[in-house]
Amino acid sequence: MDKHVNFDFHRTLRTGQPEIVFSAGKDKNSLLSLLNFFGTNKNEPVLFTRLEEEIFSLLKESIQKSYTYDRLARTAFTCPLSDKVNGKVAIISAGTSDGFVTWEAQRTLEFFHVESKVFEDCGVSGLWRLQSRIEEINEYDLIIAVAGMEAALVSVLSGLTKRPVIGVPTSVGYGVCENGKTALNSMLACCSPGVSVVNIDNGFGAACFAHKTLLSCKGIRK
Amino acid sequence: MDKHVNFDFHRTLRTGQPEIVFSAGKDKNSLLSLLNFFGTNKNEPVLFTRLEEEIFSLLKESIQKSYTYDRLARTAFTCPLSDKVNGKVAIISAGTSDGFVTWEAQRTLEFFHVESKVFEDCGVSGLWRLQSRIEEINEYDLIIAVAGMEAALVSVLSGLTKRPVIGVPTSVGYGVCENGKTALNSMLACCSPGVSVVNIDNGFGAACFAHKTLLSCKGIRK
Amino acid sequence: MDKHVNFDFHRTLRTGQPEIVFSAGKDKNSLLSLLNFFGTNKNEPVLFTRLEEEIFSLLKESIQKSYTYDRLARTAFTCPLSDKVNGKVAIISAGTSDGFVTWEAQRTLEFFHVESKVFEDCGVSGLWRLQSRIEEINEYDLIIAVAGMEAALVSVLSGLTKRPVIGVPTSVGYGVCENGKTALNSMLACCSPGVSVVNIDNGFGAACFAHKTLLSCKGIRK
Amino acid sequence: MDKHVNFDFHRTLRTGQPEIVFSAGKDKNSLLSLLNFFGTNKNEPVLFTRLEEEIFSLLKESIQKSYTYDRLARTAFTCPLSDKVNGKVAIISAGTSDGFVTWEAQRTLEFFHVESKVFEDCGVSGLWRLQSRIEEINEYDLIIAVAGMEAALVSVLSGLTKRPVIGVPTSVGYGVCENGKTALNSMLACCSPGVSVVNIDNGFGAACFAHKTLLSCKGIRK
Amino acid sequence: MDKHVNFDFHRTLRTGQPEIVFSAGKDKNSLLSLLNFFGTNKNEPVLFTRLEEEIFSLLKESIQKSYTYDRLARTAFTCPLSDKVNGKVAIISAGTSDGFVTWEAQRTLEFFHVESKVFEDCGVSGLWRLQSRIEEINEYDLIIAVAGMEAALVSVLSGLTKRPVIGVPTSVGYGVCENGKTALNSMLACCSPGVSVVNIDNGFGAACFAHKTLLSCKGIRK
Amino acid sequence: MDKHVNFDFHRTLRTGQPEIVFSAGKDKNSLLSLLNFFGTNKNEPVLFTRLEEEIFSLLKESIQKSYTYDRLARTAFTCPLSDKVNGKVAIISAGTSDGFVTWEAQRTLEFFHVESKVFEDCGVSGLWRLQSRIEEINEYDLIIAVAGMEAALVSVLSGLTKRPVIGVPTSVGYGVCENGKTALNSMLACCSPGVSVVNIDNGFGAACFAHKTLLSCKGIRK
Amino acid sequence: MDKHVNFDFHRTLRTGQPEIVFSAGKDKNSLLSLLNFFGTNKNEPVLFTRLEEEIFSLLKESIQKSYTYDRLARTAFTCPLSDKVNGKVAIISAGTSDGFVTWEAQRTLEFFHVESKVFEDCGVSGLWRLQSRIEEINEYDLIIAVAGMEAALVSVLSGLTKRPVIGVPTSVGYGVCENGKTALNSMLACCSPGVSVVNIDNGFGAACFAHKTLLSCKGIRK
Amino acid sequence: MDKHVNFDFHRTLRTGQPEIVFSAGKDKNSLLSLLNFFGTNKNEPVLFTRLEEEIFSLLKESIQKSYTYDRLARTAFTCPLSDKVNGKVAIISAGTSDGFVTWEAQRTLEFFHVESKVFEDCGVSGLWRLQSRIEEINEYDLIIAVAGMEAALVSVLSGLTKRPVIGVPTSVGYGVCENGKTALNSMLACCSPGVSVVNIDNGFGAACFAHKTLLSCKGIRK
Repeated sequence: MDKHVNFDFHRTLRTGQPEIVFSAGKDKNSLLSLLNFFGTNKNEPVLFTRLEEEIFSLLKESIQKSYTYDRLARTAFTCPLSDKVNGKVAIISAGTSDGFVTWEAQRTLEFFHVESKVFEDCGVSGLWRLQSRIEEINEYDLIIAVAGMEAALVSVLSGLTKRPVIGVPTSVGYGVCENGKTALNSMLACCSPGVSVVNIDNGFGAACFAHKTLLSCKGIRK
Repeated sequence: MDKHVNFDFHRTLRTGQPEIVFSAGKDKNSLLSLLNFFGTNKNEPVLFTRLEEEIFSLLKESIQKSYTYDRLARTAFTCPLSDKVNGKVAIISAGTSDGFVTWEAQRTLEFFHVESKVFEDCGVSGLWRLQSRIEEINEYDLIIAVAGMEAALVSVLSGLTKRPVIGVPTSVGYGVCENGKTALNSMLACCSPGVSVVNIDNGFGAACFAHKTLLSCKGIRK
Repeated sequence: MDKHVNFDFHRTLRTGQPEIVFSAGKDKNSLLSLLNFFGTNKNEPVLFTRLEEEIFSLLKESIQKSYTYDRLARTAFTCPLSDKVNGKVAIISAGTSDGFVTWEAQRTLEFFHVESKVFEDCGVSGLWRLQSRIEEINEYDLIIAVAGMEAALVSVLSGLTKRPVIGVPTSVGYGVCENGKTALNSMLACCSPGVSVVNIDNGFGAACFAHKTLLSCKGIRK
Repeated sequence: MDKHVNFDFHRTLRTGQPEIVFSAGKDKNSLLSLLNFFGTNKNEPVLFTRLEEEIFSLLKESIQKSYTYDRLARTAFTCPLSDKVNGKVAIISAGTSDGFVTWEAQRTLEFFHVESKVFEDCGVSGLWRLQSRIEEINEYDLIIAVAGMEAALVSVLSGLTKRPVIGVPTSVGYGVCENGKTALNSMLACCSPGVSVVNIDNGFGAACFAHKTLLSCKGIRK
Repeated sequence: MDKHVNFDFHRTLRTGQPEIVFSAGKDKNSLLSLLNFFGTNKNEPVLFTRLEEEIFSLLKESIQKSYTYDRLARTAFTCPLSDKVNGKVAIISAGTSDGFVTWEAQRTLEFFHVESKVFEDCGVSGLWRLQSRIEEINEYDLIIAVAGMEAALVSVLSGLTKRPVIGVPTSVGYGVCENGKTALNSMLACCSPGVSVVNIDNGFGAACFAHKTLLSCKGIRK
Repeated sequence: MDKHVNFDFHRTLRTGQPEIVFSAGKDKNSLLSLLNFFGTNKNEPVLFTRLEEEIFSLLKESIQKSYTYDRLARTAFTCPLSDKVNGKVAIISAGTSDGFVTWEAQRTLEFFHVESKVFEDCGVSGLWRLQSRIEEINEYDLIIAVAGMEAALVSVLSGLTKRPVIGVPTSVGYGVCENGKTALNSMLACCSPGVSVVNIDNGFGAACFAHKTLLSCKGIRK
Repeated sequence: MDKHVNFDFHRTLRTGQPEIVFSAGKDKNSLLSLLNFFGTNKNEPVLFTRLEEEIFSLLKESIQKSYTYDRLARTAFTCPLSDKVNGKVAIISAGTSDGFVTWEAQRTLEFFHVESKVFEDCGVSGLWRLQSRIEEINEYDLIIAVAGMEAALVSVLSGLTKRPVIGVPTSVGYGVCENGKTALNSMLACCSPGVSVVNIDNGFGAACFAHKTLLSCKGIRK
Repeated sequence: MDKHVNFDFHRTLRTGQPEIVFSAGKDKNSLLSLLNFFGTNKNEPVLFTRLEEEIFSLLKESIQKSYTYDRLARTAFTCPLSDKVNGKVAIISAGTSDGFVTWEAQRTLEFFHVESKVFEDCGVSGLWRLQSRIEEINEYDLIIAVAGMEAALVSVLSGLTKRPVIGVPTSVGYGVCENGKTALNSMLACCSPGVSVVNIDNGFGAACFAHKTLLSCKGIRK
């Protein structure tokens, strides 16, 4: 094993906190080492994000079984955190094309042991899709809204609810969408108060923020 | 009068078409010459756009009276075109801050002798404002939608109507709004089909397009 | 079939309207499911856009035959809408390199049952190409103008016609063309009134806008 | 009074909710009308943001006394909302130059009847300034972090606290700071999880989000 | 006179070449010193560009008379270079709003003792304006084309002439025109070969390039 | 052969002028058709630019031999134009990495029957490379300067020569070079007069401009 | 004195280090308070940067005399640091228009008690200006190079010297210069190794870096 | 061997200085020629940067052994320079994902015969990682700081040390990170003085600057 391979390994052992491995751009061998390590040491909670199926499928089947893996959300973890947080989160998406971000948020919350429900395909080109579900959505403490293109969902949604909305712009779209920049700016420019925003495609980040907020404001379920 | 002053003057006389004078950036003296000329030769229809009140108020009162002038729309004209076009246009705006663009569109249509009605303050942060008027809006042939910031109005509106929507992004907003660029990109990225867009703050251009469309598809009223 | 596959399927069945499937970025398996479904249920009108030949060629030959497919326009549909709209649309392009957008517009209009004719290769580097056809073009109710690079076609065209021009910038070009942004901005900055614009490469969107305009202003052919 | 003056007036009366008037870009006469109206009808809670001292000082002294006005925060209101929200918010700023945003957030929370405390001048060029206060900061439920330039405060802060951090980039700085864009992108790119972001200089928006979060997760104090 | 004032002075005396003083951004006192010096030492040819009338009018009348000054072109010089260059230059502009750049080019050529003629108002929204003059234009050796907004003039012109075209984008326009960037990119993306481009509003630079080209290819008139 | 294949074919036959085929982005089959046509009809002068070796190598050997092909310049032509232009062009490049643009310019001039010489590797990080050749360079009528990264070559060169300089920015470099945009802006901002610029990597365009200039100012060699 | 005025005051007293006050954007009253405080407590070394003459001239004459003030560099300080650093710095500028940045660097070094010499007007449009001074420049330990527009000076200079070059891009220029961004990117893209760069117009920052480097590598003069 | 292959070869022999070959974008055959040449002529010191393993592994094993090659740093050299420079450099990185840049800097310093030590994984999301090493870091003369995303490491580090910091932004990150632009701007906007910056991912450039600085200020070790 050459000197550059096992770089993330020692850090993982060093901290007691749940470890997050952002897999994109990481060396294939390094990832497999980490997946094998945590797959055989299951008492260490760990979440792998942006983990492509091609990498995961290279693991031995017994190791694969140690993990729940979601192909669309590109996430793998062995077990969620033991403490369950009070409160629950609604995850609303504009379209199914935003699914890779929507489900990354859902899976991250699952790993953090936070209750959540996904409401897909609520884009504003057909308002009834959102309006028919708004009453149910309003029963959740926090809302994560996932949308690409012009991301008008966030503006409409935050006008319909008293809940705070965490916007996640996605890179869905072409031309002026500029890989999510238009969705990002739309959310930040939102005329309706009660919205804050995370990086493009960052479903993980929105879930982290939601988790920290519930932990801080509502605490652990006993 | 030095050689650079009367530049637009000869062109005005050369064409039979209604003359449009885009006043922004033009020399004060040149503008006053033009305003005086057309104010005393009222049978020549002319529209001045982006004409600031400070300039207009420098005219003699008798000349001022030759024009209808609108302070917010920053437009002046002597009389509308004689031919009245078939069809009518609804002009919807997100907020009263977009008024300088909204009314530029209305006034341009008035000059072009096209029937129109303004529906202000229909931004999507309060959906009921749009929904309570949508039935009336749907009775118009074309819709001009004026919005700044994230311009979500256009997406919602085009999902609620069968009428084509001409979007006019405005420079209203700050920070990421980038002088209307976010509104422009939002409209162009609109997920709901049936929208086309003009330049930022270009209420005049939207009215021109609407006028040309009605003239082409519905003709002159006899 | 895992939970993320058939996402667009239920929506398709839910609405009576002609269904549009934007294929780019969609999962190969999902697309094939949809193509198979509509290919065997031909009374449901559907339009697939941005559908690459590699995907379409994976279908069974009997299913392929249910569709008309156009390789350059990357579109497939079973049958056009039954109602024929009044009026007709001229589609003008600057060059044959813009063909993938030009023909997407033409095919979408065909699906919407709108009469149209394509005039290719009218770029302004050789003005006679446009001028020799302008008389014929002027007989159409609406004009869709497709151009990349600096998109000067739109400015010249709108100065030569009384018809409204719907501009479609294309991503054709390199360097400062910036994937269509220069063409887009050129069209929006157009000095000649009567132009509105859709997203880069969005031939489909221009056709939708034209269809909605004719439907609204001229109605259904009886 | 011409037709464009009293645009925001009727809307204000229409809703029971606290009214927010974003004063920037609004007509001087319109603002004075609104200020006079609410200054004499004090039972209607209203918040004016981005209200320059030059405007406010034009009011009669008796009307001025109806308001608390803050020159730096550029905000005016008659009285806070009657319901007091549970929980409290720490507002941390990188430097005193960010004061116009920091205090806009504080004043908005005051108007919303939310307890808050400002910790100014905690920029990371001198880490001890933040570290010596972190224990006290950690006693608050939510954190609003205000910073311009490269906004490194947000990254360091979110690594030192379990509380969620709402980042507000400011337009402080020159050259590459690009009116707050670098601060905005830095916050969105933050390597430390638990951060979400609002528009540049939008202290008001951060306070709204915090208020909605506490209302949703902790409710009204009885 | 403090140490920072007379900075450009010694350089002027050092070289035998015609001196160019770019006045924008220069200190008022420094400019007046230079104007006075050259106004009393007229055998030294010098060209002042971007010289505002407010500055020039501060000179004593006797000094003013030493110069020819053009208010629109914002240029002043005492006498042109003594050598006359062979060949001549046509300067075409899209509109009179581009005059400040058009005439800067003309005046610079006059100073360089190069024959030139200005053809204003040839924008392509009315093609006949260009086409009726193209035969005369074609008799010039080089063409300078000045245009703002979408600058389609350059594309059309270079398709109509065998002469090389030097494009000068101008900052005329608003919204997507972005202070001349759209005009610049349009010219650089021009589909018709035989065009090269200078900086935005740089009429002086285009004239320099034309002068150097004629000097190099056609030499001095004897 | 389906309807979209032979699009450029008829245009080629229509004009007597030398035909230029910009091959990038064109369909492989279309290119091969064109190459075969002109390879067997050699009296028709044609230039293929941006023609990748992979395409060219698919031709039958006998057809390949009809062309001179240059792998680095990615150009092919059968024979140059018959008329030889007076004057000659120096092509200077900053480094050998700019070769694909440098030689495209040289090959285009060769096709246009213009005398030229290439001076490679004259970047300013080692000034002697340029200074030792400047005397020879000055004997040419026009200079084409090719450079990527910060493109300082153009500024230095135009300060050392009386010849006009046509700058060609290249996409060589990484990070802030932004695919040639920094080189482009550097050339346009050049402090030394006598420079004009073409699109990024557009060696062909620079050669066209040089050809047109010599033809216009110096005429055909008899 | 209201609560927002004396914000920077307590920090100044808290640290033993030389205090830097970045005056731009600061409140006039706050600045005058600070200037008065340090002007009467001269044993506290302090540097004011970006201090406009209009502010400074408001001080009582006796306080003004406590400071050395430089109008062009916009800096004021009472006395330099007592420790003199080993080594010396050459400050090279492209033109006198860059003076406001050049002299800010010089004055900052003077305040830090570092020996330096300014070489103005060395832009590469006339190479001899740099080459005639390069031998003297090479006797300095570090070089600060100040340039706007395309900033080619940095590339040429770093190719002529073995000394490290600290580049300071300036906002001098117009059009594509984009307030210094082109100069900044040019310096960062510099093909000649041995260059690092600071923010646009940040003469102060370059001097700080030079001071820290000499202090670290050469120490205090005894 | 065709005319475009051995372009860099002759230059290499021409100069006595250590040769640097930037391999990215270079022709595979050219690179192999150069590697073979220097691998058999080992007394000529040469450094290959951005050399991908796929290229290097194509060499004969005997040639491979002439070089030390580092897969992560993508660098190869035969032997370091003979003269050892005084002073030493600390290389700090935010995370292991920045390794390809971090180790490029380290390897370049090794080639230049400069002592250095790498401190990886010091990102500010866990401040203790940096604080626990700061005392050791402070013993080095210069610091190179490598970071992507929002690059807050540089701000914190320069506030903790008296040593000058050379920032190297990396392209690590997604969305708003924009391939390193946010990290670059963050470093340039750094509120803490004593920082200068090189191009994105330019570990080589930072090492060159450090080498030149030590050579200039501390000289050769005897």
